[in-house]
Amino acid sequence: MIRDFFKLISVAEFIARLGEFPVLTCEHLPLEQTLGRVLAQESISAEHLPSFGRSTVDGYAVRAADTFGCSESELALLHITGEVPMGALPGTEPVRPGNAVRLWTGGALPPKADAAVMLEYTQQLDPHTIGIFRPVAPGENCIRAGEDVMAGSCVLPAGHLLRPQDMGVLAGLGVTALMVHRRPQVAIIATGDELVPYAHTPQGGQIRNMNSVMLAGLVRQAGGEPHIYGICPDNFERLRALCATALEQSDVVLLSGGTSVGQRDFTRDVFAALGAEIMVHGVAIKPGKPTILARQGNKALFGLPGHAASAMITFMLFVRPLLRGLSGLPYTHGLRTVRAITEYQMPSSMGREDYLCVQLLDQDRAALPLARPVLGKSGLLTPLVRAHGLLPIGRDVEGLDSGVETDVLLFPEQY
Amino acid sequence: MIRDFFKLISVAEFIARLGEFPVLTCEHLPLEQTLGRVLAQESISAEHLPSFGRSTVDGYAVRAADTFGCSESELALLHITGEVPMGALPGTEPVRPGNAVRLWTGGALPPKADAAVMLEYTQQLDPHTIGIFRPVAPGENCIRAGEDVMAGSCVLPAGHLLRPQDMGVLAGLGVTALMVHRRPQVAIIATGDELVPYAHTPQGGQIRNMNSVMLAGLVRQAGGEPHIYGICPDNFERLRALCATALEQSDVVLLSGGTSVGQRDFTRDVFAALGAEIMVHGVAIKPGKPTILARQGNKALFGLPGHAASAMITFMLFVRPLLRGLSGLPYTHGLRTVRAITEYQMPSSMGREDYLCVQLLDQDRAALPLARPVLGKSGLLTPLVRAHGLLPIGRDVEGLDSGVETDVLLFPEQY
Repeated sequence: MIRDFFKLISVAEFIARLGEFPVLTCEHLPLEQTLGRVLAQESISAEHLPSFGRSTVDGYAVRAADTFGCSESELALLHITGEVPMGALPGTEPVRPGNAVRLWTGGALPPKADAAVMLEYTQQLDPHTIGIFRPVAPGENCIRAGEDVMAGSCVLPAGHLLRPQDMGVLAGLGVTALMVHRRPQVAIIATGDELVPYAHTPQGGQIRNMNSVMLAGLVRQAGGEPHIYGICPDNFERLRALCATALEQSDVVLLSGGTSVGQRDFTRDVFAALGAEIMVHGVAIKPGKPTILARQGNKALFGLPGHAASAMITFMLFVRPLLRGLSGLPYTHGLRTVRAITEYQMPSSMGREDYLCVQLLDQDRAALPLARPVLGKSGLLTPLVRAHGLLPIGRDVEGLDSGVETDVLLFPEQY
Repeated sequence: MIRDFFKLISVAEFIARLGEFPVLTCEHLPLEQTLGRVLAQESISAEHLPSFGRSTVDGYAVRAADTFGCSESELALLHITGEVPMGALPGTEPVRPGNAVRLWTGGALPPKADAAVMLEYTQQLDPHTIGIFRPVAPGENCIRAGEDVMAGSCVLPAGHLLRPQDMGVLAGLGVTALMVHRRPQVAIIATGDELVPYAHTPQGGQIRNMNSVMLAGLVRQAGGEPHIYGICPDNFERLRALCATALEQSDVVLLSGGTSVGQRDFTRDVFAALGAEIMVHGVAIKPGKPTILARQGNKALFGLPGHAASAMITFMLFVRPLLRGLSGLPYTHGLRTVRAITEYQMPSSMGREDYLCVQLLDQDRAALPLARPVLGKSGLLTPLVRAHGLLPIGRDVEGLDSGVETDVLLFPEQY
């Protein structure tokens, strides 16, 4: 069969096309279930935080002016008129000049009190009198109503990834449920006559399917929900049928294997047979050149290389940005980038981007880490296990010299 | 009641004591469930990977010597004697001099073939003859049996945190289940008469419990499993009873609130009444000075500050290293550290460590980011939401000047 040879596009062009897939719809979730989700609407506070003026110390609510000029040699003497128990309103009785009210951290300031004195800077002289030996300024050791968050103000913008502290502040504002984007549902299919489930003992030239479990983990790290659809042999009709089912049930379908220009390259034809538009077939990148992206409606189909290391690298560069974008984040890989110094010369070819698996070696504290390429033939898998991240070499250079500063993309932390 | 005043220890001394809690026991889990878990034993390969010599390209298995000296003007002509279908063994027929066998990426090399020629560098001259115009060296475009992993070698060491690519390689080796450390079970109790569940409308001086949902998220990020035990009023007997239950059901108990030197400081006494040894009460740190660590057998009890920002910072510095240690990782916070330049002068006091919430602002690509303190009174919550991480100021300095290089600990990424 004669077919168009690869029309290679650049990595940047590939990523730019991911924006054609719109962000997923929303769901309304209880606050406790939103860790790692992305806000679909900005969060506007319905009330002041705190809702009343509060002390930030254990001590006494006072009028600040009553403490001006006091010192260890000249105590300000104040009359203790009462106490604010925790969790109770202070009552409506204002603090009059010369008076003080006992209270604890977080306690409500009584009317007319405009500061709190720390217990450590007081001396109890008799059951009804304290001496204060450090003055306070108005507003000191307390927070006004609404000083943290004003009612009607934006607490978190749309598109914000929810972290534990964000959930804490929303709880403090009485937010019990949130509108967040759905998580992308991702179908994972491994293709190849030679594959057997990893729990099986391979016979003859068979090999175990390692990609499905790896891709499932990568999908989770990127905020998606993986669904493993097993192994499909290189049979056009079976692969077409399995892809059709997966496409119905998912937002994204990942195939690994079967994307080379060889005789068994069914993936592209299967995608086309499903009525999908082939958006990309071939990227100017090593590894990962034969990667395919297709579109059916708002759903994406990826043809990833069969080799695990290539599948992982193309996942990081192309699938991860899509999953993040579908979830409401920017359409970027979002991997942390560190500056490092190349340990060796690293050759590459003009006209394509190379991504090398590298280890980062700490040097002297003040110096940048060394980036050491994990050597080994391109077909090996263990370099992935030994690597900390990827070192990109641009398409316009012929490799990098040793001792130069460059970026390394770190593999995500996983908890 | 008279009691010992704080005996403050340093942050480093506190963290050193966490090592007294031994790593948790192990469990045997199916491979698919081990993402983010820590290996309890080194993983030794039972077999070679690959288990047979494989081609890494689509093309022809050859004897490399047959291609030496060929070029576009002088093709090496070889006789095609057969094909290795994917997933099948090549048979026992060796490749003789002058012969070639068609095969695909991942296919098994036939006996006596020592290299593979890429399809792109061949021309089919007739149905039984190819011409090769680029020579290959022995070993080129193929991987020997065991070249990736030798049977009997260590694939991953004990204490390794399992990432997607690690799971992929283990699947490739036929590992279906792994011995990993248990996840720490963490009980979360919020204390304070003033607290109400965040879904309630506070009356009078009440405030919503924001710490439990925040701490639950922080526990998850640190690899633990949170269990929320609700709110306990400042009642000695009720708090003792709730802690006793939590301690039975968990590896670690987190209390927030009730740790100051004020009248309502029950936490320490409750821990003591449970028969726990008080290991730490007071750290030379701001915020977080009144933090408590106690031990009952191998179980840990923390008394964290009630204020959300202080609770989060002390969690990051003290609880997170313990949860990681219990899970089999080093007893360190494990937060990513970046170098940054201080934007302003940041005052602090000698004799204690300060941790400031900071934002990181990107500068010119080649320059380090700026660390900008998130300003606001210490009782505010929104600085946590605006911050990207923590900037530590050591106990032996009086603050940092503007424009100096320093470390920033990044809050964890969350997926």
